Amino acid sequence: MRIGIVGGTGKQGSGLAMRWARVGHTIAVGSREVAKARAHAAELVNRGHTGIEGGDNAWAAATAEVLVLTVPYEAHRATLESIVGLASGKVVIDVTVPLQPPKVSRVHLPPGQAAALEAQEILGASTPVAAALHHVSAAHLADPSREIECDVLVAADHARAKSVTLDLVRDLGLRGLDAGPLVNAVALESLTPVLIHLNRTYKSPGAGILFTNLSNPPGAKSGS
Amino acid sequence: MRIGIVGGTGKQGSGLAMRWARVGHTIAVGSREVAKARAHAAELVNRGHTGIEGGDNAWAAATAEVLVLTVPYEAHRATLESIVGLASGKVVIDVTVPLQPPKVSRVHLPPGQAAALEAQEILGASTPVAAALHHVSAAHLADPSREIECDVLVAADHARAKSVTLDLVRDLGLRGLDAGPLVNAVALESLTPVLIHLNRTYKSPGAGILFTNLSNPPGAKSGS
Repeated sequence: MRIGIVGGTGKQGSGLAMRWARVGHTIAVGSREVAKARAHAAELVNRGHTGIEGGDNAWAAATAEVLVLTVPYEAHRATLESIVGLASGKVVIDVTVPLQPPKVSRVHLPPGQAAALEAQEILGASTPVAAALHHVSAAHLADPSREIECDVLVAADHARAKSVTLDLVRDLGLRGLDAGPLVNAVALESLTPVLIHLNRTYKSPGAGILFTNLSNPPGAKSGS
Repeated sequence: MRIGIVGGTGKQGSGLAMRWARVGHTIAVGSREVAKARAHAAELVNRGHTGIEGGDNAWAAATAEVLVLTVPYEAHRATLESIVGLASGKVVIDVTVPLQPPKVSRVHLPPGQAAALEAQEILGASTPVAAALHHVSAAHLADPSREIECDVLVAADHARAKSVTLDLVRDLGLRGLDAGPLVNAVALESLTPVLIHLNRTYKSPGAGILFTNLSNPPGAKSGS
């Protein structure tokens, strides 16, 4: 599958690109700056991760089958508005957390309650949004050999958005869990400041979260 | 310590009462109905859990050193308003989740963003509120011999509220984690509908949550 990572030159986008490329997906890394995205993709290819290309966000949105949004919250609305037509009909996986720097260990609810709900409103009903991947440490993701102790909650209203996202989570080597409707993105996004607080308080390079006592999880890797 | 459990005749209140009584705390189980609370406490004592008494919520609030609030969200404001003077200066641990039945697997944000933030506003600054214990399965809690695979996130603005709550969590046999300021109750409360959704989707009697990769947690029992 061809995956467009919009705003994909950061740590999180890089880790996702490498892990998905490793299992055969083709990755279009997008950025507002074409040169930056191309250099970034070239660097990943040089490090042995084939199937990764770079371009601007519009190109990534236009050429990919599924889009993943990894932008800071302050660029969220403008980025979505710039690709709304190009994204039409495609599943959009929103990884955005509405942090309010510098207080990134405090929950901040955006006007629309969750970035993913705002994304759905901007993109319109024909472009189904899933919220996922907020809790996976970017540092751990960027080391493709590392086994990550973190479940991935996936919230979406549309069945296709949910199933496509759960499949892509499994391709990352992680356990994806159906977290319910898109409004539950409020819980997913607001847990990230808590994880940042735990990292600071308990000197962790990247706290993760595992769910226990699930008797019938899909592609179970861990938990009990 | 004498702990008042306001609205304590439900499953969650019972489990907390038994587990705290077992390690030597005295429990005042409160209810709007005195007879119900007394019968409930008598039943727990008959089952071998000594140190548990019942009475009305005002009596529980007045006689205890620390208060724990386990009421349905619809009774949250009225219950707090009925004990505001009696609770003054005491640590109040709010376990309330603002669910909106029958859609209890969907996040519902209350007017004040979190029940615990609303509690703090109602009680006033001299009565420090902590949010905690939203994710521990009531069924597991009610079996005092059961080892529960669930970390307990504790959010509070006041150091005393946080440390008293973390101590009481440890007394339950659970690992308590400092989840940051009280505003992070938004994350804690909104995760409960997600756990309810996981329970339904993956046929779990009570999903729990464990945090991984914490290098320096207090009273660590699990995780890595």
